[in-house]
Amino acid sequence: MGVVRTVMIAVTDDHRLSTGLRDESSSSVVVTRSVFGMAERPRRRIPDATVARLPIYLRILHDLVENEITGISSEQLAELAAVNAAKVRKDLSYLGSYGTRGIGYEVRYLVFQIERELGLNHEWPVVIVGAGNLGQALSGYGGFGQKGFPVAGVVDIDPAKIGGVVGGVRVRHIDELPQVVASRQVAIGVVAVPADAAQDAADRLVKAGITSILNFSPVVLTLPFGIHVRTVDLALELQILSYHEQQRQTRQAAIVSSKSASA
Amino acid sequence: MGVVRTVMIAVTDDHRLSTGLRDESSSSVVVTRSVFGMAERPRRRIPDATVARLPIYLRILHDLVENEITGISSEQLAELAAVNAAKVRKDLSYLGSYGTRGIGYEVRYLVFQIERELGLNHEWPVVIVGAGNLGQALSGYGGFGQKGFPVAGVVDIDPAKIGGVVGGVRVRHIDELPQVVASRQVAIGVVAVPADAAQDAADRLVKAGITSILNFSPVVLTLPFGIHVRTVDLALELQILSYHEQQRQTRQAAIVSSKSASA
Repeated sequence: MGVVRTVMIAVTDDHRLSTGLRDESSSSVVVTRSVFGMAERPRRRIPDATVARLPIYLRILHDLVENEITGISSEQLAELAAVNAAKVRKDLSYLGSYGTRGIGYEVRYLVFQIERELGLNHEWPVVIVGAGNLGQALSGYGGFGQKGFPVAGVVDIDPAKIGGVVGGVRVRHIDELPQVVASRQVAIGVVAVPADAAQDAADRLVKAGITSILNFSPVVLTLPFGIHVRTVDLALELQILSYHEQQRQTRQAAIVSSKSASA
Repeated sequence: MGVVRTVMIAVTDDHRLSTGLRDESSSSVVVTRSVFGMAERPRRRIPDATVARLPIYLRILHDLVENEITGISSEQLAELAAVNAAKVRKDLSYLGSYGTRGIGYEVRYLVFQIERELGLNHEWPVVIVGAGNLGQALSGYGGFGQKGFPVAGVVDIDPAKIGGVVGGVRVRHIDELPQVVASRQVAIGVVAVPADAAQDAADRLVKAGITSILNFSPVVLTLPFGIHVRTVDLALELQILSYHEQQRQTRQAAIVSSKSASA
């Protein structure tokens, strides 16, 4: 109603950003939830393919930091990530990073930018549904906690599994999912159950308030609009490899037969 | 040397193709390895992104076959695969499939074409390195065998694990890898060991003759040129989800603060 609103931005010394929305007519600053603090600039829609490459760049950049390498060119980063340099430059431009001609990118700042973009400057507790071999493998997988995804809970439907300790947490009954989710503000659920139980597990996660799901069952989940799902289909990865194997064998066979024919 | 060579193609009734290379000067037909039989047409290079989507289309098409659906439009397939229709049409055009205007694609033929392209008309035995929770989860994962990737062997370095039965096969010592690979003509190896053992596992697989690796360790493997690697980095998938969670929370916070400001 004629009120001028401006977004206030404050960069603190640890690079965390706090944002307030200022109502000019009253001069009061409405400080929003801390997570909003990360939105220090207008959000552009980043293409999914770029989002999927950012963690790959990040892994490489972390390695560089460990090896005390401070700068990298788009060509070098491209080679390490197995994409082309133009794509690297385009991807990083979405973060507002353009590098310096002849010098490249500053590694630590790029790490900061990617982590900020991916929301990795705070923790995202996860809950795992399924305490079988896969659930155990996932909860025991050190990378989760280290990378900012601590396992907040593991649930199962099998009475024989409930009460056991998996990945350092006690397995609880799947009916307790809402409490687990609420108590640790879990946003991400992991489906590690057999295919025929996957849809039910996903439905229960959504009901409990989960909005992102990492699915390891080889099924297409039907979920309400707005729920993000990543499916890791292990057979799918193998199918991509079999394509390359077939290509290889075809080429080899062509060489063999070409030699035979000219012999 | 002035020799005219033509490629002979024979389509057998089970859609398997046998190919021979004919040397016109001698009229002898050099029959190459059976795998060459699949190369019934000149191989075009299919973009990696398309190759990665083919298994997704295939999974959807298999569901359609099960539900006795015989035809599908590019729009429908696009919706089920969560890509756009133009991309679906482009992807399928690499297989030589263009659909019929107003009718779409014949489901069973598309299944046949994708399976042929991915090399799924024969089995690709896999060997799993690592008999821990992840190795057990993978070998027990029914999808592997069903989808044409039978587990030919599981190896480990830990004496306590050797001799045990995992996924129906006896765990053998990692030193026996060359025999396992040779005896079952394994082309694909799966790395399911902790991060610090992953490079060694991969090196041993390559030494044993493996040319494609599915890597579950969160490390970038250094391998000779020509070895295909797919890395399933579980934390990476979570990072993609955390991006979307952050976007969601930012939007929600913006709505909340906008309401607060105008209140």
